Order: sequence, then C-alpha cells, then structure tokens
Amino acid sequence: MPLSGVRVLDLTRVLSGPFCTALLGDLGADVIKVEAPEGDSVRGQGAGRDGLSWYFAQFNRNKRSLRLDLRTPAGKAILARLIARSDVLVENFRPGVLARLGFDDDRLQALQPRLVTCAINGFGSTGPYRDRPAFDFIAQAISGFMSVNGGPDDPPLRSGLPIGDLVAGLYAALSITAAVLHARATGQGQRAEVSLTNGLVSLLAYIATNTFATGMTPPRSGNDHPIAAPYGLFPTRDGQIALAPADDAFFRRLADALGEPGLKTDPLYATQPARVANRARINAIVGGRLAGNTTAHWVETLNAAGVPCGPVNSVADVFTDPQIRAQQMVIDVDHPGYGMVRMLGFPIKLSETPCRVRRSAPRLGEHSDEVLAELDYSEAERAAWRRDGVI
Amino acid sequence: MPLSGVRVLDLTRVLSGPFCTALLGDLGADVIKVEAPEGDSVRGQGAGRDGLSWYFAQFNRNKRSLRLDLRTPAGKAILARLIARSDVLVENFRPGVLARLGFDDDRLQALQPRLVTCAINGFGSTGPYRDRPAFDFIAQAISGFMSVNGGPDDPPLRSGLPIGDLVAGLYAALSITAAVLHARATGQGQRAEVSLTNGLVSLLAYIATNTFATGMTPPRSGNDHPIAAPYGLFPTRDGQIALAPADDAFFRRLADALGEPGLKTDPLYATQPARVANRARINAIVGGRLAGNTTAHWVETLNAAGVPCGPVNSVADVFTDPQIRAQQMVIDVDHPGYGMVRMLGFPIKLSETPCRVRRSAPRLGEHSDEVLAELDYSEAERAAWRRDGVI
Repeated sequence: MPLSGVRVLDLTRVLSGPFCTALLGDLGADVIKVEAPEGDSVRGQGAGRDGLSWYFAQFNRNKRSLRLDLRTPAGKAILARLIARSDVLVENFRPGVLARLGFDDDRLQALQPRLVTCAINGFGSTGPYRDRPAFDFIAQAISGFMSVNGGPDDPPLRSGLPIGDLVAGLYAALSITAAVLHARATGQGQRAEVSLTNGLVSLLAYIATNTFATGMTPPRSGNDHPIAAPYGLFPTRDGQIALAPADDAFFRRLADALGEPGLKTDPLYATQPARVANRARINAIVGGRLAGNTTAHWVETLNAAGVPCGPVNSVADVFTDPQIRAQQMVIDVDHPGYGMVRMLGFPIKLSETPCRVRRSAPRLGEHSDEVLAELDYSEAERAAWRRDGVI
Repeated sequence: MPLSGVRVLDLTRVLSGPFCTALLGDLGADVIKVEAPEGDSVRGQGAGRDGLSWYFAQFNRNKRSLRLDLRTPAGKAILARLIARSDVLVENFRPGVLARLGFDDDRLQALQPRLVTCAINGFGSTGPYRDRPAFDFIAQAISGFMSVNGGPDDPPLRSGLPIGDLVAGLYAALSITAAVLHARATGQGQRAEVSLTNGLVSLLAYIATNTFATGMTPPRSGNDHPIAAPYGLFPTRDGQIALAPADDAFFRRLADALGEPGLKTDPLYATQPARVANRARINAIVGGRLAGNTTAHWVETLNAAGVPCGPVNSVADVFTDPQIRAQQMVIDVDHPGYGMVRMLGFPIKLSETPCRVRRSAPRLGEHSDEVLAELDYSEAERAAWRRDGVI
C-alpha cells in the first residue's frame, strides 16, 4: 500500500486528528493510537451497539491502540522510544502542550531527525488567538464559512457536519504525506501545522478573490447561483430536485426536455443574463413543469437529456442510492465480538493498492503489549507498567 | 520542497482539478497546465483588474501553461511525450473522455509505467450515474450534504462555497502524493480516482455512523448543538457571537464570566442534560447578558475566561482579522504586468520547506516554448506547430 512502512504515532483525540490518521491508516500506514488511561472520549460517544460506538469504530479503523499514561516518567520514556522509531507524530493538543509534556521541537528532532510532526489546532500556534480554546463551530464562525451560507436575509449558518475538523484532518494528511516524501528523499524531518480556521479560510475560493479584487463581499444567494438561472431546488410531485443547467447549452436541453422548446428563442430567457434578469419568471415556468411529475421521473428524463440534476438526498437516502452503493461508500466491517459494523467507505480509489480495512478499531490498550514488545521492552517491564497503571 | 522533482501534467479545468494541482504546486511540484487553444474558462471568470481574473490567478499559481490542441495528431503526439516524462497526470474530464482522446489506461501505462493518473469526476467512473453531467451543486444535493444544513423546518441548503469541488481537489492531492510515494518506492504507477459526490459523502462523519447504528437520521439542529446548550449564535450590542461551551466545565466558566455564578448550581442548568432540556431558558438568560455589550467585549472577556467563542466574521471581516493576518492567510503576489494581486495564503505550514508562490499564474501558453524545448523538440518543429495552431 502507498504508506506501507510508515509508522504514525497518533496522540490525537476526538475528530480532526483521528480523521487524519484514519486516512493515513486507510492508505496503509501503521498507526499507533496512543490513548490516555481513560481512552479517547469518542469511545463513549454517538450511537452504537452492545457498547461499541460506531462513531469510534469508523474514525479509528486501521489503528492499533497503546494505552499510556504520559503524566508518568515511565510513560514519557516509552513515548521517547516510540518517537525514535517512528516516521510521523500527529497531535491535536492546544499549542504548547506537547512541549510541556517534555517533547519540544528540539527534543523531537534529537530523538528522530527524520520525524514529521504534525500539529492540528484551532487557530495556529502563532498570533493573538493561539491560546484560545477552539471548536469546529467557532472555526466555522471566525473563518467566514458561516457567513456565506444561506440567503441574503438569513442568519449566518454553520454546516451540520464538523467541516472545520474534517477539512483540517484532510490537510493534515496531505501535509504529512508530502513531508514524508521529502523526508524519504532527503533525510530531513520537519514540523507541519494545520488549523481548523486556516483550513476553512482556504476554501473561500472565488468568494475571497472577488472580495480582494472589488473590496466588496458578494451577496449571499442561498441555493440560487448568483450568475445562472434557472438554478436551485425545485419541488416535484413527491419531493425536490436540484437543477444546475449552468450555461446556455444546458438550458436549451432543459427547455426541450420540459417540452417548452419556445423558451430557447424567447428573448426573455434565451441568454444567461436575460434569465438572471428574469429569474423569478423562468423559475416559475420551470418549477411549474417540474411540480407535475416525480423526482425519479425528472432525474431520469433530464439526465437522459444531458441536464445536470439530481435528487436532494437525506442521509438515509444517500446510503440506499444505487450510485453510492456501486461506489462502495457503505461498507460492512467484521468487528470481533460485535458482529458486522457498518461504516463509510473510501473516497480515494486506487487501482493497484486500494484502501481497505486491515484492522477494525482497537479496544483501549489492545495492542499495548504487542507495541511495547516491538520496542524491545521485556515481559517483566511490561508487567510492572501494567501493574502500576502506566500502560 | 516536498514535491520538488515531481512533474505533474495538469489537464484539468475550472475548479476541482486546478485546486488540486495548485496544492501540489504550492508543495513544490512542477505543474504543467495543458490548456486547450481557447484556455481555461476561468481566465474569463470572476472579478479582477486590467483583464486579469484574480480567481484564475489564485487557483493557477505555481503552474506553467502549455497551450495545446489535443484534437490534432501533433497535439496528441506531444502529450504522449509529455506523459512519458511525467510522474503524474491529473484530469477532470467526464469518464471515458481521456480514453477517447487516445489515452486509455493501457496506453498511459505503456508510455510511463510509474505514472500516477488521477481522475476527478462527479460520481466515479463506474455505477449507474457515471455518465451523468455533474456540478458541485448536484454533488451537494446527492451526497446528503445539503440535507444536514439548517434547522428542522428549513429547506435543505447548500454551502455558498463550492465545497464538493474543493474537497474532491483535496482528496485528489492526497491520493496523488500517496501514490507518488508508492511509485518512488516500488516503481509501480497506478490510477487514482476521486469524485465530488464520494468526497462529500465521506464527510458525513458521526451523522452517518448514527444513522447506520440506529436506522434513523439525526434531526437537523441549525446552529444549535444537538446535545449541548447553550450553544450557537447570540446577538450582541453590535453584532453576533458564536458560543460553544461544550461541556460542564466550560459552562461554569461561562456562568462566572457573565456574572451569573448562581447558574452553576441551579438544578435547571447545572448539567448538560438539564441545560439541553431547558435550552430555551438558558439561551434566554445567556442571550440577555450577551446582548448588553459588544462582540469585541465578549470575545475578549469570554476567551480570557477560557470559554470557546468567536465573532461571526463576514468574508471581509476575515481578511482584516488579526489572527488570519498573523497566519498569513492573505498574501500579495507580484504579478508581472498587473502589479500586486491579493490572494489566499497557505493552510499547510511546513517548518523547513514552507509553501510559497514561486510563479504567479501563467498567461495562456506562456511556457509552451520552454516546455517543448525541455522535451527536445526543435525550434523548427515548435515554429511549425505555432503556425498551425497546435500550440
């Protein structure tokens, strides 16, 4: 697999970090999840069955668990040896916490010159907000992400997904993989850092560039496209359809498919600027036709005509959608002791080294003994640490 | 830089692909943007100055432009030689288009066994929707992403950002970097694929796992947190504040900071379940205090007390926020002939090999001659192709 032979020491908890390291594990890395004695709090969160959190199971697949009390001298010594034999360390503490545990950048570098360290935090480790507590919701607010969602008169709105955490996890996985490539080529390790807020800011895309160029923020447009019409959600006989005929060619196909070929030459609608100027009228005409039949009918008919459209799936709908199933975005994983656990599949499709679940999510400390044995600690040492609660 | 020496052949247009290859370029790859004779349509989109699209400038920094007519035999021959000397080929055509141009998987493999090919598309290249036209908006609808945004009685709502395109671009950059690491280690190239829809589905996170485990989709909660209160946006004297005191410890700090220490022991509010049961009441009390002073006052006061909170920045606010500036998320790039162009900075911070703009976005065909010379084509050949409109 692409990251075979890459050992990742995972000190992260909850969401952004575990998402990052699950991606690395899906790509073949050996991820050692170092958990505090009480375990990652996600073990007790979300719905599950028979005491197993399916949220934990999904975000911690392809990892081994080492239970380790980093407040003890023995715990710190074990971590030091682990670092010396790892390629990557990932943490999502607040800035400064790892250094206060005894592992500042100099120590990390001394332990393992090729080490790639990745820090995931709320705002970055420099600047006036560096010490502030951060959560996904705050990053969504500060980054401007909330401000662009909704219509002109709606309040700012977050995404219902923890998008700040997830995007930061994705950037972290990319940073780490790139830095490992560099370390393999040059022997040089380094520190990577990704913040929830910077990650979301980087997605402001053309809204940012338009603001930079004009000094004005584009108005919010809800589900409408600011410079295309018709565009958006339309009611059907039994639900809704999302419609995005983004240019004149698509619009002409739409007009034919709706049985309204006259729209193609009507000066009120023939061009994009004309349709945007007459958005309410063209939306009414298109909406009137769409309301007369079912979503399935229109999705079939319009796609056959080459018009971009689709159903507005609920989360439950998504997982029965034939395309999502065909793409294996829902997988069942045999979880020893708990039967089959259903979880999300892999958005990365690789022809020769496909992602797969090599390990179901570990029990707390399931691999403590195995990992410490790999580090050449004796059975006596391990037994003593187990007795003392270090592992 | 991490991707120094990695040559990326970029056949992509518009957004998802160019975002992916800009990330690779930011990390040091040599990105050759192969443009059709008319150029990437984004050259003519978005706001800009003096005829330069700042949207294009941001998404195409760190690339060279080769203008190439792939409909001509000479254009195809040049592409074949480029492929033979590249590490990566990225495309965001619809499935099958690259093969119809004469470059199916077997041909690509024959030209360059170590080649990493990455396809970015709407729904994936297999399954019933593979040939459907796709846009970000449709991916937001089909993936379930829209369905989780907003309150229980609101319509499904897209993000105002092209989040499907951007997340696919990020996954593509990760796939490519991992596959290059594999190719460097083993000599084995492969085909990577990422779709807009799968990318968004993968972000359904605990909403997916809760649905899998219970068979029920969690209700939408707008800006509220389903299992924490108080939480969300609250009006202040001059705006709004986002507040996320996600557990009892944070709530106690909030109560003190608001001058309402009695809330900490009041049985109506002392525990998370009690506060969720009395959400309207606790929101009213907290909201009443917050409305009495400015956003800046509360952001300062509450953060000093260790309560997660922040302003709800507009896009314009973001770019003057002292933390965003300190994190260099706004940069000015000298663009020859156009002066300084402002654009987003780098969310990936690397200590030893930082991302930087080595090249401003290219003019159409700016590097055609240079790239063809590197491929050992003679001056006479280049002149003939220029005359014939091949380049």
